[in-house]
Amino acid sequence: MAYNLLKGKKGIIFGALDEKSIAWKVAKIAKEEGAEFVLTNAPLAMRMGEINKLAEECNAEVIPADATSVEDLENLFTKAQEVLGGKIDFVLHSIGMSPNIRKGKSYGDLNYDWFLKTLDVSALSFHKVMQVAEKQDAINDWGSIVALSYIAAQRVFPDYTDMSQAKAVLESIARNYGYRYGKAKNVRVNTISQSPTKTTAGTGVGGFDVFYDYADKMSPLGNASAEDCANYCITLFSDLTRMVTMQNLMHDGGFSSMGISEDIINMIQPK
Amino acid sequence: MAYNLLKGKKGIIFGALDEKSIAWKVAKIAKEEGAEFVLTNAPLAMRMGEINKLAEECNAEVIPADATSVEDLENLFTKAQEVLGGKIDFVLHSIGMSPNIRKGKSYGDLNYDWFLKTLDVSALSFHKVMQVAEKQDAINDWGSIVALSYIAAQRVFPDYTDMSQAKAVLESIARNYGYRYGKAKNVRVNTISQSPTKTTAGTGVGGFDVFYDYADKMSPLGNASAEDCANYCITLFSDLTRMVTMQNLMHDGGFSSMGISEDIINMIQPK
Amino acid sequence: MAYNLLKGKKGIIFGALDEKSIAWKVAKIAKEEGAEFVLTNAPLAMRMGEINKLAEECNAEVIPADATSVEDLENLFTKAQEVLGGKIDFVLHSIGMSPNIRKGKSYGDLNYDWFLKTLDVSALSFHKVMQVAEKQDAINDWGSIVALSYIAAQRVFPDYTDMSQAKAVLESIARNYGYRYGKAKNVRVNTISQSPTKTTAGTGVGGFDVFYDYADKMSPLGNASAEDCANYCITLFSDLTRMVTMQNLMHDGGFSSMGISEDIINMIQPK
Amino acid sequence: MAYNLLKGKKGIIFGALDEKSIAWKVAKIAKEEGAEFVLTNAPLAMRMGEINKLAEECNAEVIPADATSVEDLENLFTKAQEVLGGKIDFVLHSIGMSPNIRKGKSYGDLNYDWFLKTLDVSALSFHKVMQVAEKQDAINDWGSIVALSYIAAQRVFPDYTDMSQAKAVLESIARNYGYRYGKAKNVRVNTISQSPTKTTAGTGVGGFDVFYDYADKMSPLGNASAEDCANYCITLFSDLTRMVTMQNLMHDGGFSSMGISEDIINMIQPK
Repeated sequence: MAYNLLKGKKGIIFGALDEKSIAWKVAKIAKEEGAEFVLTNAPLAMRMGEINKLAEECNAEVIPADATSVEDLENLFTKAQEVLGGKIDFVLHSIGMSPNIRKGKSYGDLNYDWFLKTLDVSALSFHKVMQVAEKQDAINDWGSIVALSYIAAQRVFPDYTDMSQAKAVLESIARNYGYRYGKAKNVRVNTISQSPTKTTAGTGVGGFDVFYDYADKMSPLGNASAEDCANYCITLFSDLTRMVTMQNLMHDGGFSSMGISEDIINMIQPK
Repeated sequence: MAYNLLKGKKGIIFGALDEKSIAWKVAKIAKEEGAEFVLTNAPLAMRMGEINKLAEECNAEVIPADATSVEDLENLFTKAQEVLGGKIDFVLHSIGMSPNIRKGKSYGDLNYDWFLKTLDVSALSFHKVMQVAEKQDAINDWGSIVALSYIAAQRVFPDYTDMSQAKAVLESIARNYGYRYGKAKNVRVNTISQSPTKTTAGTGVGGFDVFYDYADKMSPLGNASAEDCANYCITLFSDLTRMVTMQNLMHDGGFSSMGISEDIINMIQPK
Repeated sequence: MAYNLLKGKKGIIFGALDEKSIAWKVAKIAKEEGAEFVLTNAPLAMRMGEINKLAEECNAEVIPADATSVEDLENLFTKAQEVLGGKIDFVLHSIGMSPNIRKGKSYGDLNYDWFLKTLDVSALSFHKVMQVAEKQDAINDWGSIVALSYIAAQRVFPDYTDMSQAKAVLESIARNYGYRYGKAKNVRVNTISQSPTKTTAGTGVGGFDVFYDYADKMSPLGNASAEDCANYCITLFSDLTRMVTMQNLMHDGGFSSMGISEDIINMIQPK
Repeated sequence: MAYNLLKGKKGIIFGALDEKSIAWKVAKIAKEEGAEFVLTNAPLAMRMGEINKLAEECNAEVIPADATSVEDLENLFTKAQEVLGGKIDFVLHSIGMSPNIRKGKSYGDLNYDWFLKTLDVSALSFHKVMQVAEKQDAINDWGSIVALSYIAAQRVFPDYTDMSQAKAVLESIARNYGYRYGKAKNVRVNTISQSPTKTTAGTGVGGFDVFYDYADKMSPLGNASAEDCANYCITLFSDLTRMVTMQNLMHDGGFSSMGISEDIINMIQPK
């Protein structure tokens, strides 16, 4: 069921760690839809074997880059344009990491150096990607940039701690850079707020399984999978969504609009 | 640039008045994308010549229906399934009318019978469409239902008067019926909140031109056109957006996320 | 703990049914804070004994009015100004009723005449109150108008059915009339979105108890009581909140900002 | 017009720079309302003469603290409790500073060390205040914490650059710490999103005057002044708003709910 939606389009995909990753699925489907792209990830985060497997399947080159490093990003955009033979049409930013979560710090005992690290890796990296791209004039007119977010930017999920702030920054950057890049080059910038997803990163958050089931039972369509999310990304990279920009798009089977569902009522009802 | 995104899909399109209509553009592109559908409009609102022209171009049947009449809708869904040879995959609701606006009543001098009429025609009709469809079990699993809305549901545009309330109801119905239909049949229901559009209906609102220019200058990508909107509708009817439901999706070139733009600053700046 | 916050202010309070009513509590506290006011309710809804008891305690007059009747409202505002000896400073609208809920109709089997009735009683009445007041020039400069709403305007609570749309209209009217009345007379208009409350009206909604407990466990401060709500109303009627207008103010112990709470996690966690 | 709303309450007020400051006005009115408090500001930012003048007028002690320094904050809370003879009932956080704005960097040319500095000073400081307070158990049950925000957290104001992200973080911290502190001690945490205000800090943002007038003409009640904001803060510190938490409260004369106003239409209308 390939439609050629991305025929002739060139992209950069950040964050394909392993085959559970949303970015991995995006790469696979983007390939089917006719896109060419480079894959990138942080040198440390890359399990080279895994991403190379994906690169082979997609006939794509891997260009390592620490997304917090402006130099690495400059190198990435320069090389990507060389490899792909032209400017970029779409970018996927799927990057998030909190040392406070990794070390199990509660929200009342955060380490502030790590808090800034969380923001730098998970959110400022998105600004850096766009600032570097704009300075190099590396994106084609009507290009599309998407970052993956989470509803913890709007509502409290206690175990998500400082990643909540990171996602708030990410979405704010999408709006603000979206204005700038829209005026400059008609480039659109959006975030997708995705259901909890059983990726390697997602399941690192405490109490993930309980929460996953809760969201699944709250959402009339259930949780959106990584593959569903990849399909949605494709529509945002296509030419059919050119006027959608500066939005945070809920991709969650309805979760965000729910107050309570009958399934949850049944779970909590005294028998 | 047809992708076959709607190949094999069957639909019902409400509200194609003339070739400026968003619904008209949706019909044209849906046809290109491989869909079959019936067209419908209120017997009174139909300028038969016009819609018949569209019907011919799309090889579609026209089934008149007053969308406030449950009986008419029952007939429409019954006949549509006969004509199309099966259940429906997508529905577009593009209906709005305010007697208070037509008669130039200000917001401090509304006629309340007309206010209820505005709500019935522009919003309750959407509920009726879905209630009738569900009772007939007329929509396929994973079907997609879209209604066209406007940002006056969230913010004040003084000339929009009671249509603001109608759009608030429309979006609320999308959320609430979206939950119900999602649980029942995995059918998704969304509204698109579209830029001011130079349709025959849109230009009927007072001060339309000034407002149109204001929105155009506020939005980094400018106002989204009827054709842009039609493209976006197609993505929502396609299988690539299955997990998007109960959302109000801004399709506005960025307008909704703007506080102020440099173009507006330049307009109002004292020289 | 009276502060004289409403000293010298004159008001109209709609919707005091019995001593569980929020409006009842507002009347009691407004009295303590120095206000004078008239009480009003629909002739049918009034259990005369009850409201007369309140009227006696507050030394207030009762003027019956069906809030869907423009004539009744005209009479109410005229008489209220006579009784109170001047223009009105604050109005509380606490009115809601859905025949569909009363008759147990599900959201997929609504009666549409009743749906319009729900909207007329629970929402258009709010517009009528303001349109009548403005035409009579019955509100003082910097007056304050508050209506009580519920988060079903934003999110789905399946048992709330068409009252969800009524609250969406109510909040939309607050914004739109708030603009108009703000320009005309610096009158502010807001809605308070209150926790589920054990009033006679609230407990009429199906599954109220389960839902009440859910909200209570989701909210870090628990559900806000009717008395809490009355206190909050007083601040909005006072001169300390003059620049707050066209807002829907969540008064819910934090519910609206929650994704999930530890108490809910504990409830649903497999043992 | 003092009401004794804060009689017996003890507070800490951050950010009174000079008599245009919102924090300055809050101190003055809090004093009139019966509160005792300490004033604090960054050693560098303090023009000692000015804040000492306020301290004298309010009979308050000044305890310098760099709000990015956990040590300084520990000292502040310890000393404040000594000086005031007990735990704290309310805190005002009115702190914001962006090196990128000071140096005139555009949003496409941000310095990333400064970006992190903006976030640390203007937002993480709010988390630090609460984490230190909670660890010292320095806040009374049902205490109230307020930080001042701006609508750039939701919408784009091009000149506000990285302060937009800082405000998004600030509001996210309010929600997330509000949950934690609510569960722990019934302490509520909110932000007030204030109109553009002619403070020394506010007028530092580029194009302030044009934007100030725009907001004033968009808002039906005009822009809220620093004194209006102080009055509103008092209500949030009082016992009348105990169940309001984790909210971002618009205090803006209606600006946030406006799409377009008649005054703006008149400004941009071709003559």
